Amino acid sequence: MTDLDKRNRLIDCDVHPIPRNVQEIYPYLPKRWHKDYIMLGRPFYNHPNHVLRLDAVTPDGNIPGSDPSFVREHLLNEYGIDYAVLLPLAYVNMHPNPYMAADLASAYNQWLVDVWLDGCNHGGRYKGSITVAPQNPKAAVKEIEKWAEHPHMVQVMMDSGADTNFGHMQYHAIYEACAHYGLPIALHPTGEALGISRPASSGYPTTYMEWSVGLTFSVQAHLVSFITEGVFDRFPNLKLVLVEGGSAWLPSLMWRMDNSWKGLRDEVPWLKKRPSEYVKEHVRITSQPLESTDHPEHLLYNLEMMDAKNILMFASDYPHWDFDSPTRTFPKMPAEMKQRIFYDNAKELYKLP
Amino acid sequence: MTDLDKRNRLIDCDVHPIPRNVQEIYPYLPKRWHKDYIMLGRPFYNHPNHVLRLDAVTPDGNIPGSDPSFVREHLLNEYGIDYAVLLPLAYVNMHPNPYMAADLASAYNQWLVDVWLDGCNHGGRYKGSITVAPQNPKAAVKEIEKWAEHPHMVQVMMDSGADTNFGHMQYHAIYEACAHYGLPIALHPTGEALGISRPASSGYPTTYMEWSVGLTFSVQAHLVSFITEGVFDRFPNLKLVLVEGGSAWLPSLMWRMDNSWKGLRDEVPWLKKRPSEYVKEHVRITSQPLESTDHPEHLLYNLEMMDAKNILMFASDYPHWDFDSPTRTFPKMPAEMKQRIFYDNAKELYKLP
Repeated sequence: MTDLDKRNRLIDCDVHPIPRNVQEIYPYLPKRWHKDYIMLGRPFYNHPNHVLRLDAVTPDGNIPGSDPSFVREHLLNEYGIDYAVLLPLAYVNMHPNPYMAADLASAYNQWLVDVWLDGCNHGGRYKGSITVAPQNPKAAVKEIEKWAEHPHMVQVMMDSGADTNFGHMQYHAIYEACAHYGLPIALHPTGEALGISRPASSGYPTTYMEWSVGLTFSVQAHLVSFITEGVFDRFPNLKLVLVEGGSAWLPSLMWRMDNSWKGLRDEVPWLKKRPSEYVKEHVRITSQPLESTDHPEHLLYNLEMMDAKNILMFASDYPHWDFDSPTRTFPKMPAEMKQRIFYDNAKELYKLP
Repeated sequence: MTDLDKRNRLIDCDVHPIPRNVQEIYPYLPKRWHKDYIMLGRPFYNHPNHVLRLDAVTPDGNIPGSDPSFVREHLLNEYGIDYAVLLPLAYVNMHPNPYMAADLASAYNQWLVDVWLDGCNHGGRYKGSITVAPQNPKAAVKEIEKWAEHPHMVQVMMDSGADTNFGHMQYHAIYEACAHYGLPIALHPTGEALGISRPASSGYPTTYMEWSVGLTFSVQAHLVSFITEGVFDRFPNLKLVLVEGGSAWLPSLMWRMDNSWKGLRDEVPWLKKRPSEYVKEHVRITSQPLESTDHPEHLLYNLEMMDAKNILMFASDYPHWDFDSPTRTFPKMPAEMKQRIFYDNAKELYKLP
């Protein structure tokens, strides 16, 4: 960490490492799956222009996010980021075949370790996420056991696309393993309305804009499911990280859940306190894409209402098109709030040095 | 309107008239559907206690909401409500059979007119909603044509449960008819995850609490679909009313949509302005269940952020369990805001005398 400005410490909680091409993943993936593996390709819900920042193409012409050294220069050193939490998008949840889904998750984990986390790892500034396939909980638990003690793995992650909300008992073995190893479980939007994952709402979106705006409903519904199913009562040690699903909705959803619980608590006897209290204790939310308005004071007030000082963690989503810059995205905030959102909350959650 | 206090005028935009029993609907419904028609009955997603207010049982022991004279006393006169907008819940969207769905909508419309709107109608204080079955757009258009000129029908309504988001082109004939007659289209939550309607999010809820909290995602996703599909550009005269899906989420969703549109407008060339501008011009939201918090000043600030003064309309949801009282639900508001939410916005939208 020689090239950091110690006065403005910063953790980026959503950076996407991307293999240069399918050939980079093939060695990690059993050969029988190769013909079905199409990296990033899908026949619809594609960005109308470019989903990756054009200026993030690597110096040797490879795909953005594919070169650890260039990402270090282009993102970490450019903004003085101490740590980047890496979330590879393996698109496992959509697979009808749970065996392939699990093998694909394994492939991405080994690739992440080999290419980004082991070796020099630029002073340990890259922290990893253990990808698991929720449609194959047994394999997911094994994958967590395999990597939990790796010094640079800091959480478990799943795509948010699903056919069953993530509080459901079918996933509890995964959370038990997370809690056992003290690893947060992170949900990252993608896969909704693709393959076996249902759409994020009652119907299939028709455009990328409808699809991508709607990802927030998927993340919010999973949160409701975690709460109403009592997942945090069953695993008191568990932390949930909601990545890239927006955050400004949090006050309204906490109010709605608390209101509902008042009248319906007979049905969910495992809930020992108000839903908003579980959120504050167990849930962290990453900031990108931070909502923006013509009235920055509205956004600031909203951050106060959601207790962002204790819940929100900065994220850039590099190298995606809607990258949030740490210097330009946020409204002017009180110093303590900024310090906690940009650094302390993530440092505490991920137990970083 | 002899028994009203003229100084505090009030319109209730969500009151549910309920047939006393199935026998009250049978005469309106072709006989071949009788065996399939189960009023209010479903094998799951039932309120753990009572979905209807126990104190709203009629004096002769019938189901709450079934007696126009008693509702007049118990709700309208009790709170000095000038007009009640009636939304019967016929649960049509969930039906796999679109012919039965259309006939059920027709039955409820004729029943509503016969029992609530025609005859004395207590000085015209009851205003009606024309139920249509969105899975049968041709029949829906006919139903709108049949009732549009009725002096007490003020809008068209659909359940929010669906298998395709409501901005989709398959529904546009319905909106064309609404716009032609100057009738708003109202969406009222119910039916999600039942019959042919998908769940409101990526998975099936397991409890009534998860189901009912999640209804807000269904309503929000339909709004996104109306915007991204350009429905308001195609029918500039159309107004959309979102009933009972909450409202505190509106600022965050407008911010998210506006942000998204900035980067993705190439894909939705029919959008001529920011999504939030369409919302302010075309969308009205009813207040119940108004979110509540320990900090009433947060809620008030949220009402200001969403421009509630011009968008929100008071609703009680009588006779449902989570009834909002006009005297106790809202935080203390500026007089003009209160006047518009409690009366003016609905009066203008529904062109009431």
